[in-house]
Amino acid sequence: MVNDVKIAGVGMTPFGRHRERTVREMFGDAAGEAFEDADVPRDAVEEVFFGNYMGEFAEQQGHQGPLAAEAAGVQAPATRIDSACASSGVAVRLGYEKVRSGLADVVLVGGGERMTNLSTPDGTEALSAAADALWEIRAGMTFPGAYSLMANRYFHEYGGSREDLAHIAVKNHDHAVDNELAQFQRAISVEEVLDAATICSPFGMFDCSPMSDGASAALLVSDEFAAEHNLDAPVRIRGAGQHSDNFALGDRASMCHTPAADRAAEMAFEDAGIGPDDIDVAEVHDCFTIAEVLALESLGLYEPGEAISAARNGETAIDGDLPVNLSGGLKAKGHPVGATGCGQISELTKLLRGDHVNSDAVEDATTGVTHNAGGTVASCVVHVLEVDG
Amino acid sequence: MVNDVKIAGVGMTPFGRHRERTVREMFGDAAGEAFEDADVPRDAVEEVFFGNYMGEFAEQQGHQGPLAAEAAGVQAPATRIDSACASSGVAVRLGYEKVRSGLADVVLVGGGERMTNLSTPDGTEALSAAADALWEIRAGMTFPGAYSLMANRYFHEYGGSREDLAHIAVKNHDHAVDNELAQFQRAISVEEVLDAATICSPFGMFDCSPMSDGASAALLVSDEFAAEHNLDAPVRIRGAGQHSDNFALGDRASMCHTPAADRAAEMAFEDAGIGPDDIDVAEVHDCFTIAEVLALESLGLYEPGEAISAARNGETAIDGDLPVNLSGGLKAKGHPVGATGCGQISELTKLLRGDHVNSDAVEDATTGVTHNAGGTVASCVVHVLEVDG
Repeated sequence: MVNDVKIAGVGMTPFGRHRERTVREMFGDAAGEAFEDADVPRDAVEEVFFGNYMGEFAEQQGHQGPLAAEAAGVQAPATRIDSACASSGVAVRLGYEKVRSGLADVVLVGGGERMTNLSTPDGTEALSAAADALWEIRAGMTFPGAYSLMANRYFHEYGGSREDLAHIAVKNHDHAVDNELAQFQRAISVEEVLDAATICSPFGMFDCSPMSDGASAALLVSDEFAAEHNLDAPVRIRGAGQHSDNFALGDRASMCHTPAADRAAEMAFEDAGIGPDDIDVAEVHDCFTIAEVLALESLGLYEPGEAISAARNGETAIDGDLPVNLSGGLKAKGHPVGATGCGQISELTKLLRGDHVNSDAVEDATTGVTHNAGGTVASCVVHVLEVDG
Repeated sequence: MVNDVKIAGVGMTPFGRHRERTVREMFGDAAGEAFEDADVPRDAVEEVFFGNYMGEFAEQQGHQGPLAAEAAGVQAPATRIDSACASSGVAVRLGYEKVRSGLADVVLVGGGERMTNLSTPDGTEALSAAADALWEIRAGMTFPGAYSLMANRYFHEYGGSREDLAHIAVKNHDHAVDNELAQFQRAISVEEVLDAATICSPFGMFDCSPMSDGASAALLVSDEFAAEHNLDAPVRIRGAGQHSDNFALGDRASMCHTPAADRAAEMAFEDAGIGPDDIDVAEVHDCFTIAEVLALESLGLYEPGEAISAARNGETAIDGDLPVNLSGGLKAKGHPVGATGCGQISELTKLLRGDHVNSDAVEDATTGVTHNAGGTVASCVVHVLEVDG
């Protein structure tokens, strides 16, 4: 380990329905904002890692690394990273390691996804390629189906109810009300969640994150570069971890534990030299309401079986002890899958710096964590962020 | 820079028509061979980088990092890398940097592709997603079309003929005759090449690499790990480079120069501390015959305009001064696109170690180079390999 890794700048398009916009256009905007935020010249960038999951399906476009670099106005080695819904989280980690190890001083990371130009059936089919095409998808499984199996098994092992899950959706919508980048800037009630159309039991419509378009970007720099260029970069990545699991849900030891996330969290905390008790705020991968529960338990923020009641008890709300998904989460901020992981980094950086609409809720916070998962958590990446005291 | 990076083991399936085999099966075989070759236990692996380009089209399968790790019997962070036909070359470079920087001692890299289960039109459409979907493909361009533009422009600027190109195909077929891993183990004549059906002028069928299935793998380890475990690993990666260019061919300053390859080569040679004059043998990306010419010029092995006659003059043949594509190249060995870059590493490692069928031709060789390109060289990755003297 050679360098401390500073987040010099972040950028994010509004997440939502922008079906007329290409991924390249959206990433150009997000990256442009990150350059402006960082006050770093484009020609300082030494590498680009760009997360995209379903470009082949949505735009008939693969090979998006060089395309993303060009859209950002950067000439550098540039690679498209696909780890399903964890794509840009993995891009952030690769950028972090490149700077951390001393191989580069400035790396542009981010991601983008275009989804709403596909019909819902086509979008669902595209998303299904993140699960096992042979042993899950051909048998008829979809992601709502897979996560509902995880939820039902959780209920069986630990208890819990649809109403517990509903509080998670309500909380995350509450958090997004004033977030201008969020797809759904409106509050919902527990009754609305419970009365909504069933997607796949126990999930109603409001248990599921939406189809979204959007892009995110971050400029990671070494502490030395930040000092030399007199950058205002108070937030750093203190640790990162990533891990994988058996690909198909049925090959796992348990359907309601996510060991890839456990391991990624252990790695990130070990790298950071701190533990879950030091975390003040978290952005986690709530693609479905149950996913937030599993994330909080994998991160060690709750014991197994305990996170199910956290939202209902108000512990993870904006005024709770451990605010979770102050951005609105995937549920309310939106989930353009390739942009989500770096979007968490962007939002958490602003929360910690004090320039997020919800920053007041965490004004004493120094340390946050992000959790970004791919598929049914066959891959997961965790980052620990810290702001100068 | 902390570690020397040793290639402890390599593996490669035969390239060819294996339409009944999945990518995961083929990569399991290639990785298994690499583990056996390296005598490294699977639980030593700390990271997996896996190149795949068209899984979404061929198998409705994305998110292949964890899937590849599982197929290889490895539990580690695992990421799918897409840089079109340079996917597994980039995977090798990311693994190299991870070990080189001291962040890991053992990394599994490789790639796999399944193509022949698609019809030729569907395969051509899948490949087209490596070019610009908006500005090239919608206008009707295919890869044979794009490279034929590059060839015709080259002829215009420097001279050269279809017959010059034919000698490249003939040479690479000659090299593959005894390579049991090659798709086409037969010699062809200049007349056959010139008489073959035109694909896109100036290219006939034999100017084009085929649709192929296959997988490749390599185990990269630190010199310290190799010493501690008493590994027989005489070949090391001495340098690596990667770069990008404007995505669409029409946005480039020239259609017959490939600056992404120029820059990747410069980076690799600078990293290695040597130059083109030190190269004894090369494996380059001859997806079309003209591509070998452009590669040799970008690598600095020939001056611009000079490489066109290299094959005709016998300079790059098995008994020439600088043998190029002793494996048979993409043309005759085959081109399962996601497997190609690491396949070059596998073949060159064997050539340098002395256990390739064509090793006798380069028994005094100490240093080789690989050149692996994506799209119309919008991305390129170069590696310099060296064997202990």
